[in-house]
Amino acid sequence: VKKAMKAGKVRASTNIVSTISDDRGDEPTYACIPMSEMIANDYGVGDVISLLWFKRPLPKYATKFIEMCLVIAADHGPCVSGAHNTIVCARAGKDLVSCVASGLLTIGPRFGGAIDDAARDFKKACDLNMAPDEFVETMKRQGKRIAGIGHRIKTLENPDKRVELLIQFADRNFPATRYKDYALTVQTYTLTKANNLILNVDGCIGALFCDMLTSSSCFTDEEIDEVLDVGTMNGLFILARTIGLVGHALDQKRLKQPLYRHPWDDVLYAEEQINRE
Amino acid sequence: VKKAMKAGKVRASTNIVSTISDDRGDEPTYACIPMSEMIANDYGVGDVISLLWFKRPLPKYATKFIEMCLVIAADHGPCVSGAHNTIVCARAGKDLVSCVASGLLTIGPRFGGAIDDAARDFKKACDLNMAPDEFVETMKRQGKRIAGIGHRIKTLENPDKRVELLIQFADRNFPATRYKDYALTVQTYTLTKANNLILNVDGCIGALFCDMLTSSSCFTDEEIDEVLDVGTMNGLFILARTIGLVGHALDQKRLKQPLYRHPWDDVLYAEEQINRE
Amino acid sequence: VKKAMKAGKVRASTNIVSTISDDRGDEPTYACIPMSEMIANDYGVGDVISLLWFKRPLPKYATKFIEMCLVIAADHGPCVSGAHNTIVCARAGKDLVSCVASGLLTIGPRFGGAIDDAARDFKKACDLNMAPDEFVETMKRQGKRIAGIGHRIKTLENPDKRVELLIQFADRNFPATRYKDYALTVQTYTLTKANNLILNVDGCIGALFCDMLTSSSCFTDEEIDEVLDVGTMNGLFILARTIGLVGHALDQKRLKQPLYRHPWDDVLYAEEQINRE
Amino acid sequence: VKKAMKAGKVRASTNIVSTISDDRGDEPTYACIPMSEMIANDYGVGDVISLLWFKRPLPKYATKFIEMCLVIAADHGPCVSGAHNTIVCARAGKDLVSCVASGLLTIGPRFGGAIDDAARDFKKACDLNMAPDEFVETMKRQGKRIAGIGHRIKTLENPDKRVELLIQFADRNFPATRYKDYALTVQTYTLTKANNLILNVDGCIGALFCDMLTSSSCFTDEEIDEVLDVGTMNGLFILARTIGLVGHALDQKRLKQPLYRHPWDDVLYAEEQINRE
Ligand SMILES: CC(C)(COP(=O)(O)OP(=O)(O)OC[C@H]1O[C@@H](n2cnc3c(N)ncnc32)[C@H](O)[C@@H]1OP(=O)(O)O)[C@@H](O)C(=O)NCCC(=O)NCCS
Ligand SMILES: CC(C)(COP(=O)(O)OP(=O)(O)OC[C@H]1O[C@@H](n2cnc3c(N)ncnc32)[C@H](O)[C@@H]1OP(=O)(O)O)[C@@H](O)C(=O)NCCC(=O)NCCS
Ligand SMILES: CC(C)(COP(=O)(O)OP(=O)(O)OC[C@H]1O[C@@H](n2cnc3c(N)ncnc32)[C@H](O)[C@@H]1OP(=O)(O)O)[C@@H](O)C(=O)NCCC(=O)NCCS
Ligand SMILES: CC(C)(COP(=O)(O)OP(=O)(O)OC[C@H]1O[C@@H](n2cnc3c(N)ncnc32)[C@H](O)[C@@H]1OP(=O)(O)O)[C@@H](O)C(=O)NCCC(=O)NCCS
Repeated sequence: VKKAMKAGKVRASTNIVSTISDDRGDEPTYACIPMSEMIANDYGVGDVISLLWFKRPLPKYATKFIEMCLVIAADHGPCVSGAHNTIVCARAGKDLVSCVASGLLTIGPRFGGAIDDAARDFKKACDLNMAPDEFVETMKRQGKRIAGIGHRIKTLENPDKRVELLIQFADRNFPATRYKDYALTVQTYTLTKANNLILNVDGCIGALFCDMLTSSSCFTDEEIDEVLDVGTMNGLFILARTIGLVGHALDQKRLKQPLYRHPWDDVLYAEEQINRE
Repeated sequence: VKKAMKAGKVRASTNIVSTISDDRGDEPTYACIPMSEMIANDYGVGDVISLLWFKRPLPKYATKFIEMCLVIAADHGPCVSGAHNTIVCARAGKDLVSCVASGLLTIGPRFGGAIDDAARDFKKACDLNMAPDEFVETMKRQGKRIAGIGHRIKTLENPDKRVELLIQFADRNFPATRYKDYALTVQTYTLTKANNLILNVDGCIGALFCDMLTSSSCFTDEEIDEVLDVGTMNGLFILARTIGLVGHALDQKRLKQPLYRHPWDDVLYAEEQINRE
Repeated sequence: VKKAMKAGKVRASTNIVSTISDDRGDEPTYACIPMSEMIANDYGVGDVISLLWFKRPLPKYATKFIEMCLVIAADHGPCVSGAHNTIVCARAGKDLVSCVASGLLTIGPRFGGAIDDAARDFKKACDLNMAPDEFVETMKRQGKRIAGIGHRIKTLENPDKRVELLIQFADRNFPATRYKDYALTVQTYTLTKANNLILNVDGCIGALFCDMLTSSSCFTDEEIDEVLDVGTMNGLFILARTIGLVGHALDQKRLKQPLYRHPWDDVLYAEEQINRE
Repeated sequence: VKKAMKAGKVRASTNIVSTISDDRGDEPTYACIPMSEMIANDYGVGDVISLLWFKRPLPKYATKFIEMCLVIAADHGPCVSGAHNTIVCARAGKDLVSCVASGLLTIGPRFGGAIDDAARDFKKACDLNMAPDEFVETMKRQGKRIAGIGHRIKTLENPDKRVELLIQFADRNFPATRYKDYALTVQTYTLTKANNLILNVDGCIGALFCDMLTSSSCFTDEEIDEVLDVGTMNGLFILARTIGLVGHALDQKRLKQPLYRHPWDDVLYAEEQINRE
């Protein structure tokens, strides 16, 4: 469409162009597939994401992998920014939508962003055929930590089972795992520096997401770049974490928690110091 | 916990209480189940929702039903309030989170609210043993339309396949379908008024959700009321529609659509009339 | 317009109707007043609010009072829900709009809602000619606290200067202060119960807002009810607090604060207790 | 504080640091000034912004200029992204906070961003002593339009009165107007290209904001860069436009407008074309 529009073949006399779904018939369609067909054929959440985000059905292993990502990223306890703001909003007595939105708005570079960064960085380095040590040292020179590498507790000897299970799933089901393999060679190198510099679960998901896109033969190279550019993995994190945020809001409402007020003694009020300076 | 807290047995010396997940160990747990166990046991999105929203695993038919609801409610085209605001926000060049939040915030009584209303109304009427005609006429006297009844196009003769497939799934898999059966008797009565006053897909989901809760034997009556009270079905719609909103935002970004400005000639500027009145 | 539309005189062939401003000419107008006229005539924030929210200019004392409300409600420190969520969002590295939105979403019944409740309750009781003791005891029987009455620290002997200054301003400038006077008689009664049950700043603003609307002779009774119904005072709190939220977000960015994570030891993880019950 | 903290003199044993306001006493303070003092001294909205955003009082001409900016940017009709999303949300029956947040979230690079861009660009070019033609041609080579230059209707012969009034105010009240003067020399050059390439109102505000900061002698150069870096002018637009968004939401509620659905025939549903390609 984009090309056709540029070429002037399709003229958008309308103010809005949309390509993912259609609600004009007597039942909605997602990427031209009517909803009753989806239900009859037992489509799951991964399939619907394929249709609405990628505008095409994806193979079973891909939709299964997407669902595994949703499971893994659904929640990470009440202390992280997103859950915390949702909890504070729920305790202010607000409706569920406001609670979820207040929490979602904290998702960004420092909260939830590691998966995207890992995917983009591993893909770029691998496509450029950078040797793992070259990649790691280049990042170091730029003063950047490698997203997706490192864990506070887990080490080579005490590995993260989730990473093992994801890799096992991919090895058994993906046609190819070029980016994950590359990420593991990066891990081999960083482990020579410290034994907690393992490929963590965010890095593993990021690399496998690239593998899923390339090995499925469903996308051109240009389309894959576009998928990563427009922030599709960010969408995956948003969707996944919405499960947890709804959970936290319902939890607080169930517990009838009162208005949250941050404790005074946990705040350094630094006004006066400033004016005295 | 609530009871224990009221009874003074558990003292919350902490400022925050949370009961759905734990991030303190080296892997997160949802309702005490560690994540690697979830992945090893092939937990899907429905299972995670069971753990995070209901704090217990639910039987297969229930998690499958939850996933069907997500599929059905994931999107309804670009024209509805949620998708529209997300599209406008994406065309203003904003990040994915802002686009999704701008759209989600339109969810409420007039957009997405019919499922909850249908669930609550059918459950209440059925539990009170109201005869279908009594229920319908009482609502009419109160000047209210029955949520979940009526379709612009579909009729008894031209039925909605999605409703048929949902009912078929429930008949084959649910232990009991008391509320759905009740909703169908309501339909029988409303069809005597007009042949488009059928049980629609929102009404069907609402009634079946009540059936899922009661027939699973996983909840006490008190807990079921609590589940409906805190707005769990609203959470289901929020989560489902987030799939579509992410899709619409990605779609606009892919299409590189410019800033949207609503056309002047579609607005009645009624200022002057007012001042002249 | 509403009446004309109901009567079928004005036909909205357009999809949108709007009555507060116009952007079609070469400069925008607010309630038919062109912007260069506003600037030439030295219009301030209170005047613009008059035009955009009330669709008419208001007398000087009214716009001045609106600005005093903005000053008073602009901020209440970093610990309240709104500021806290904005701070958490800023520390997640998000853009200013997201930070402000995340904080605003906590405004509601328990945070910021006291002004509206006070306004509505005092107006209703006063219009019904309820004696102060009757009003107080009726509320008590309903198990409700009176919004706008009571202070943790301030008492009859140690009064709140802000309340004194607001009352002084109104006594000197408002044509009439019927609702504020009523609120003071309520205070006289509640002070017989405890000497901290004074008219607090929220209650004072709420009552004076009603006085401003009625004594200005700019509104019919019907219009005043509409102003309170649609939540205009809530708008005033939203606008005022946006000043503070922007301030807190800028403050955190300036201080380059890192990602906030709520401390684990301030959370009661009550999962296990539940499952053991 | 920042320096002191880096130097290890102030130890933040607390989890939160805040420097703009204090709520611990019996009345809040903004930048150490108690609120009753603000009311007694007739502080207005501009003064409060000075205290909460800049942590210092600013001279009268500066607070007056800030208030002029709020007046000018308060609203721009119902068709722009922000107002439109707020209107759609209000028509979905949502609460005022949700309506405002849904609209605010569209503020960004394409909607509301011109003021910031103009301020930064004019300041940088002027500080570098770039000749106007050099600045314009450099931007052109980079394929960028100059933010703050150009108007669809206004020309040299048919000037924008708002710009004239703003400039007149600054000429009469600002100690110096170096950046505005620079912007006018840029205009002189662009007018040789086309007579509608005038300094527009966004550009005028942006340049004058820089003049306000530098000529007030209240800020070091470092502080001025910080003020522009953290996005203070974006905050000004957010705050100003909140006035308009509240107005539009109240307007729709008053008019009791029903759920908005974008008209089908204004959407190009391009799904099938894609699949057929
Ligand atoms: C998890 C983590 C905090 C562990 O850090 P740690 O063990 O405390 O390590 P330190 O911060 O003390 O750093 C120790 C050394 O390892 C290096 N290092 C740590 N993480 C690194 C990474 N991700 N990439 C490259 N080098 C890294 C440090 O630069 C430091 O090197 P130096 O001693 O030469 O200066 C860290 O690895 C990290 O931030 N990882 C990436 C974050 C990520 O993917 N997060 C996803 C979860 S949201
Ligand atoms: C779908 C719908 C708009 C179709 O309405 P329609 O065929 O145009 O019907 P009309 O509005 O002309 O009403 C025709 C008659 O049916 C009645 N009716 C329509 N929907 C009804 C309902 N849900 N419950 C009870 N009576 C209903 C009307 O009251 C009217 O009765 P009357 O002639 O005695 O006054 C309507 O049924 C409806 O709003 N249904 C509920 C909405 C719902 O569940 N929505 C979920 C999707 S989000
Ligand atoms: C400020 C406040 C917390 C002070 O409460 P306190 O001094 O701790 O008072 P307590 O909660 O111990 O109550 C003492 C008695 O005063 C009564 N009381 C307290 N506030 C009352 C009110 N607003 N209206 C009526 N009675 C009130 C209580 O019911 C109680 O009566 P009882 O002893 O017969 O049961 C309380 O007055 C209040 O909540 N006020 C209204 C809140 C409000 O306007 N907030 C706006 C700021 S956001
Ligand atoms: C207002 C505006 C749309 C008017 O544009 P227009 O008269 O239709 O002009 P065109 O787009 O046809 O451009 C005509 C010529 O002027 C140039 N031009 C237009 N605006 C320019 C600007 N801001 N800076 C530099 N050159 C500009 C164009 O590059 C073009 O040059 P060319 O013929 O050599 O290619 C345009 O000036 C603009 O976008 N201005 C900046 C936007 C801004 O400040 N917006 C703030 C309001 S939110």
